[in-house]
This record gives sequence, structure tokens and C-alpha cells, in this order.
Amino acid sequence: MALRTGDHSQAATNGLKEKVLTLDTMNPCVQKVEYAVRGPIVLRALELEQELRQGVKKPFTEVIRANIGDAQAMGQTPITFLRQVLALCVHPDLLNSPDFPDDAKRRAERILQACGGHSLGAYSISSGTQLIREDVARYIERRDGGIPADPNNIFLSTGASDAIVTLLKLLVAGEGRTRTGVLIPIPQYPLYSAALAELNAVQVDYYLDEERAWALDVAELRRALLQARDHCRPRALCIINPGNPTGQVQTRECIEAVIRFAFEEGLFLLADEVYQDNVYAEGSQFYSFKKVLTEMGPPYTARQELASFHSVSKGYMGECGFRGGYVEVVNMDAAVQQQMQKLRSVRLCPPTPGQVLLDVAVSPPAPSDPSFAQFQAERRAVLAELAAKAKLTEQVFNEAPGIRCNPVQGAMYSFPRVQLPPRAVQRAQELGLAPDMFFCLRLLEETGICVVPGSGFGQREGTYHFRMTILPPMEKLRPLLETLSQFHAKFTREYS
Amino acid sequence: MALRTGDHSQAATNGLKEKVLTLDTMNPCVQKVEYAVRGPIVLRALELEQELRQGVKKPFTEVIRANIGDAQAMGQTPITFLRQVLALCVHPDLLNSPDFPDDAKRRAERILQACGGHSLGAYSISSGTQLIREDVARYIERRDGGIPADPNNIFLSTGASDAIVTLLKLLVAGEGRTRTGVLIPIPQYPLYSAALAELNAVQVDYYLDEERAWALDVAELRRALLQARDHCRPRALCIINPGNPTGQVQTRECIEAVIRFAFEEGLFLLADEVYQDNVYAEGSQFYSFKKVLTEMGPPYTARQELASFHSVSKGYMGECGFRGGYVEVVNMDAAVQQQMQKLRSVRLCPPTPGQVLLDVAVSPPAPSDPSFAQFQAERRAVLAELAAKAKLTEQVFNEAPGIRCNPVQGAMYSFPRVQLPPRAVQRAQELGLAPDMFFCLRLLEETGICVVPGSGFGQREGTYHFRMTILPPMEKLRPLLETLSQFHAKFTREYS
Repeated sequence: MALRTGDHSQAATNGLKEKVLTLDTMNPCVQKVEYAVRGPIVLRALELEQELRQGVKKPFTEVIRANIGDAQAMGQTPITFLRQVLALCVHPDLLNSPDFPDDAKRRAERILQACGGHSLGAYSISSGTQLIREDVARYIERRDGGIPADPNNIFLSTGASDAIVTLLKLLVAGEGRTRTGVLIPIPQYPLYSAALAELNAVQVDYYLDEERAWALDVAELRRALLQARDHCRPRALCIINPGNPTGQVQTRECIEAVIRFAFEEGLFLLADEVYQDNVYAEGSQFYSFKKVLTEMGPPYTARQELASFHSVSKGYMGECGFRGGYVEVVNMDAAVQQQMQKLRSVRLCPPTPGQVLLDVAVSPPAPSDPSFAQFQAERRAVLAELAAKAKLTEQVFNEAPGIRCNPVQGAMYSFPRVQLPPRAVQRAQELGLAPDMFFCLRLLEETGICVVPGSGFGQREGTYHFRMTILPPMEKLRPLLETLSQFHAKFTREYS
Repeated sequence: MALRTGDHSQAATNGLKEKVLTLDTMNPCVQKVEYAVRGPIVLRALELEQELRQGVKKPFTEVIRANIGDAQAMGQTPITFLRQVLALCVHPDLLNSPDFPDDAKRRAERILQACGGHSLGAYSISSGTQLIREDVARYIERRDGGIPADPNNIFLSTGASDAIVTLLKLLVAGEGRTRTGVLIPIPQYPLYSAALAELNAVQVDYYLDEERAWALDVAELRRALLQARDHCRPRALCIINPGNPTGQVQTRECIEAVIRFAFEEGLFLLADEVYQDNVYAEGSQFYSFKKVLTEMGPPYTARQELASFHSVSKGYMGECGFRGGYVEVVNMDAAVQQQMQKLRSVRLCPPTPGQVLLDVAVSPPAPSDPSFAQFQAERRAVLAELAAKAKLTEQVFNEAPGIRCNPVQGAMYSFPRVQLPPRAVQRAQELGLAPDMFFCLRLLEETGICVVPGSGFGQREGTYHFRMTILPPMEKLRPLLETLSQFHAKFTREYS
């Protein structure tokens, strides 16, 4: 029994004192939070790594963490120019060093001029350094073919996650049947479900169509919305494009249809576009929601509310650890935007090194700059290798009986569907595990490969998937895919 | 009128479409958030700076932002060794440079070894790099005279604010009269009031005793607690030591009394100890709550729940922009601690550069290291100058009629009390402003000095204060203090 405050004095004298903070007394919303990408399977992977280090014999020599989109952990090399500029900003004595190119130095000086006390150690203003928000605005304008972007609508953030949670926080209101509902794709990136649980908002699932390469279907959006209106007040629609975990890249037509739907139904659009640089498939192209919205003209252009998120963690940069990102808000009510500014100010500022990397990423060297050639070569090499890995992943998985993998058109993941024999499903249920969790745990124990079960992202009842990043180095990826396919075959035989 | 979802289709056809997100429909808790340190007065300061740049004539040539504890923005130089190690980590090519001392290189190599892919660009584990948490644990052990610290109880964070909000989030539960109440000092650092408003928890004020140099009095804690129990369930007690904005450093006896009180009353202790390096007054000494708690023995040692916060933003480091910090939890329920771990994992990881700076700050160069002498000299110079500024501030303010300033024993702020003439109070009320806000706004417009009104921190009814940092460079601080005192005299005459 958990004693409540007020019973404590009594309990103390009895020597029976309970903790103040227990599972019974803590925030119940926090307890509902789940985050599979770093869930139990990853904790087990960490344990296995420790056992390997201690010399425990395993059927593998290395744990491969294909659970998280962490490019540099998988050996991707940082882009030289990004790190040069940041090193110069961190330690300005280096501005006198002959080992740094002139354009990197000019960049660093320009950024430091814009910092309080000319130092990264000062807080920036809460929405992020003015100069960097201006550079982000120009990047968006170039990306969207000249459509204007206003630095005052750009808020830098601690990775995209931080900005996404801020927007959701603004949207949460009501109780019971008037609680805010937020439409999210299934499968989704579990930040969304986690944040909604924490904020006590209603998660409204819309299913992506696996048969059509995980395309988004407006009829399904409508079904989800209408059903949700019985028990909550749906007010926002989240889109992840390119898709995580699906790898799908939305067509322009699809985006137009989504915008019309959101407008007609009065939904705030949250466009998670952190993989905008990660498009690999022929015929696929990234269109930003902002661009499509603007080009659709009235009434959408000046009315439809939108927030678009980006990050330095993905793309060709892969600078996850620095936690840089931004959100651009479009058509946001001015008073609400002031409230957002105020809310952000409580946390003082996004980390300045992430701001610097973002600045370089949105304004890369120009053709006349000394670093241009190297920068372009490094960028192209990273993206070309990712494209090759995307293709290889799809190909090897689709050669395996019982595994079916949609094309990885973009982003950094495959989300293949696996057939699991009924006896395996039954065994999992006996163990109190989701069937794909059971499969992934066995895979980890026997091969050292760490992937995340589809149940952590959501999937149609009775289907099973896992998410695997395409990030392992090429020489490891093929054997890894083959080992995984062979394990699936063995697992299937074992439970047939 | 704000249309609600469901009315939108109709509204759209009428061309009368309202925004989805308005002041009427947004999160009401966010609207209640206030954060004076970056509030309206700071926005006005930014405008004034812009006007000065545009050549608008003002009675001053420079805005002095004494509103926020941002040492490097005020010209404090970063500690060389911190920046050297970080630059090496950011750009490991520099490990071959002859311009860096060997110990900085060894440090950087050691940290990079502990990073995924040996790069700061990889995510760390969510609680922060294992090696760095171990270094933090050893720092705490040294600080507390050998009392053990467990790295598993240490969570690195995005500045201390992030960790404080996480702990408050865990503690929030209940509705109506069972809502979580949290005791906070008045005056307080407004992160606390802001976070409690956002989380819809009940702020329970206990007043510090201005007559006794802002000491904490357990009788006042008890009064606040008993009154609060009528309308909420008080479950946590926040302490800021050294005090922000008060500059008070608590005695060991006071800390013992607070711990006994918290234990008897069943309150989780939150000890904001980010100014632990900033103690200036003779006879004052920093005692950590952890140390005192442990030395008090049973029943406190093994039972009293505590979280202690620290940061790289303050101390002699002043590295605010990097957002590095940590929390150590003591006697936390193991299941709750797992929930905390899970909650943190949703945001992936604290920024790695802040983790690096924290690592260096908690394990500075040893006497045998090549960087020892310079590091110690720089550290001592910063702290000695802060001590001199603390003394000067108290002295100059106390020479001014109508201003009374308690000794600045520690931290980075003075919080002097100002007498405001009744006619000024009346004029402020006519303008819809708190009287000290009116004073501070006039001060800003006429002198360019930006300080934060006491009403933003809380103060006893009918008293007026402002918070001013002691951070401006020595050569500016004295004239600034004198200008401020003279302005107060003029303001007093004007409204007499």
C-alpha cells in the first residue's frame, strides 16, 4: 500500500515510511509513455555488449545496433566543413591557424559576431540566433523555388523532437470528449505516441497503405477523423514525409489532397520533414508542405496552419548528438505565436553548437568557396551510399521467403513485413510478448542484430514488422541482411 | 468567436474560417506561464538595441543586459582548457596539431572513445555518456568528502532546467484538491513557477526572510505547507542554494532543519545547486543537500528522496549556450527511476558538446597536468572577480537612500529592495503595471540598464525589488550601480 502525504509522520514513527514518489503516486501520463526505439530490446542489446566485453561466449562477436537512425554511430564520417566551422567557433584561437580554409574562418567569424559576447558560451535569444534564423529562411526560400520565408516564423530547437513537442503542447486542451485529438500515421515514429501520452491528448491512428508502398490515403484519414469525433476533438494532423519508419516519399498529388482535407476539416498540419534530404528512389522527389500549400493558392495559402520540422540529425549531416533543428510555422495566429515564443523562453535557448551546424547545413559553401568541391564530394558520397543501401536492403529482403519489403524511397529505414508461424505467435503470447518483439529478441540473442519490432511503431492487427536502419556500412550491410533473412527462415522452421 | 473543429467545413464555404489554434482554443496552461527573466522588459531592451543601431538618439549609448546570468555575453572569457578539449572532440584532425596541450588531447581521445562511432555526432545513451556520468559521480564524491555517488543515479541534461522540469513532471498527479503541490521559495527563479503552471500543478509559496539576509525559516515552510494542504497535496519542496535571485548561501544547520522537515512531512526534495561554485562571502560555505542528508544518518540517509541539479552555465565556466547539466537522484524508488529513464529516452540524448564541457568541469586538470596552472589561474581569476563584484554591488547600493541590498553571499545576482513613492505606485497602477515593472521600464528607457522587476520572482506584498546580475565587467559595474542609484533618487524626487 502506498501511503499518501499526510500519513507520513505517522508512518515515520512506525519506521514504515513509504517513498513520496512511487508508481502509485507518480504522474500517470508518464507511465503510459512508450518509446520502442530505445525500449527493452535496446537495453538488452546494451547488456549483451557488456557481456561480450567481459568475454562471455555468444553466437556473434558484435552487437549491431540497427535500431536507431544514428549514422555516425554506424561509422558515417562527419562532413569536414561542418566540423571545421564549429571547431573555429568553439575555440576562436584557431582563426589564426593555417590548417583551416578561409571560407570556414569567414563563416565562424560571421556566426561569432552574431553571438552574445561573440561566444558560443552565451545564451542566444530563445528562438535562436537571429542571423541563423535568417539563413534558415533563405534556405527554405531556395528549397521552395523562391516562396518567401520569414525568419520571425522560424524557431530553432534542440533537435526536431523538441519543436514537435512544443507544437503539440500548444494544441492540447479540453477534457473528456473535448480533449484534443491528433491524427498520426500508423506506423509512426513513436515520439508522437509518447508525446501525446505524456500530454494526455488523444492519439488518433490513420493507417498507411502497405499494399501501395505505404501511401497515405485521404479516405483513410477521413475514416479516422470521423470515428475520432465521437470521443475527442481532433485538431491536428501529423505527416511524416519522407516516412519514418516506412521510407515512403509522398507525391505532390497526395500532399495536395492532404492539405485540402486538413483545410476542410479544420486541422493544424504538423509536417515532419526531417528526411527532406534523404530521397533515393528514381521518380521520387521531396515536396515541402509549405511549397505545395503556397502554390495551391487561395483559400489554402493564406489560411491553412502548418508547422514544418527539420533537423541536423538526419540528411547527409547525421549530426544527431548536437541536437540542432528548427520549426517553421505558417499562418499561425499571431497571439499564439507570441505564446510559443514565451514558452520557448523558459528553456532559455537551443544549444548553440547545434545552431552552428544548422547554419552551415542550410548555407553550404558556394561554388566560388575554397571548400565547395570537398563539401559537395562528401555530401554526394554519403547520399549515394545511402541510396545504394536502400536498394540493397529492399532487394535482399525480398529474396527471402516470408519477408516482404516495400521500396525504401527515402529516409533511413526499411520496415519489412515478416510472416511469423502461428506457433511462434502462440509462444510469444505465452511469454506475454508481442509476436514481433519475441522475434526481434530471439534475433538479437542469436545474431547480435538489434532491430525494433513493428509493434513499437504500430501496424495493422495480425501483421508483423520490424524497423531496421539502412545505416550499417556497406560491407556489413549485406551479410547483416542475409543473416537476418536466414534467421527468419530458421525461426519459421523451428515453429512450423 | 472561435469556431471549433466540426464547424470548419461550414465556415470554409462562408469564407469566415477561423484559425484552428487561437488564444481561445490553445492550451490554457501554457497561457498561464510567465518567465520574467526573458519577459516584456527584455523584449523592449532588444528593440532599444535595434533603435540604437539605426541611429535613433537615446540618453544612453548602450543597453546593458543585467537581466540574465549570462557571463560570457557580459565579456567573461571562456576557460581555455574547456574549449580546447571540446574543439578537439568536435574536429579530431586537431589531435595532430602542435597547438594543443597533451592533456587536452588525452582528454578528448578518452571522451571520443566513449562516444558511438567515436564521434560527438552520434547520440549518446539517453542518460548521458557512461564515462561522463562516472566522472560526475567521482566529482560528487570529492565534493562531498568521499560519500559515494552512483553513476546510475546521474542523468545528464540539456542545462539544469531540463532536468528540473523532468523531476517536476514525474511528481505531477491528481486533480482538484489532490493536485500535486510544490513548495517554492519566494523570491524564486521563475523556471519553477513557469513549469508548475505548464504542468498544471499547484505552486505553494514559502517566503524567505529578507530581514535575515533571505534566510530560509522552517516555521515559514510549515505555515506554507499547512495552508496548502487545504487545497492541494504538497509533495515536493524546492530549494535554491546558493539562492537565485537572493544570493543567500544556506548554513548547514538550515539544511539539516529543511531535511528533517521534508522527511517528517513526506516531501521530495529538489535542490537547485547550480551555483555551488559561486560562494563569495567570508564565513559562507556550500554544503550539498546530499552530503548533509548522508551525514545526518538514519532515518534520513537511506530514506529521504532528493534530486540535486547542477549545470555548466554558471560557476566559473559560464558556458550557458552549450546547455550542459545533470541531476543526481538519491533514494528514488527504483521503478520510478526506470520511468524517468524511459521518459528521458524519448528526447534521445542531451547535447554532446554540453556533456563534454561538463566532463571537463567535473574533472579539471590535475596538478601534474600541463594545463593545470593556466586552468587554475583562469578559474581563480573569474571567481575572484565575481567576489569583488558581489561586494561592490552590495556596497554601492547600500550607500543609496531608499535602496537596501542584502549581502550577495553567492550566485550571480543582487536582489535589492527599493522604496517607491506612493505616487509612483499609483501611476503604475493606472498604467496596469506592477510598480517595480514601471520602475524598471523607466530605468531601461532612461539609462539603458536592463534589470528584472522583483514581481517576476515574487516578493512580499507591498515590497519592491529588482534582480540585477553582478556580471558586467568591473569597469562598467561601478558606473552602472551609480547610474542606477542616481536614477532611483531622481525617480523618487519625480513622484514625491
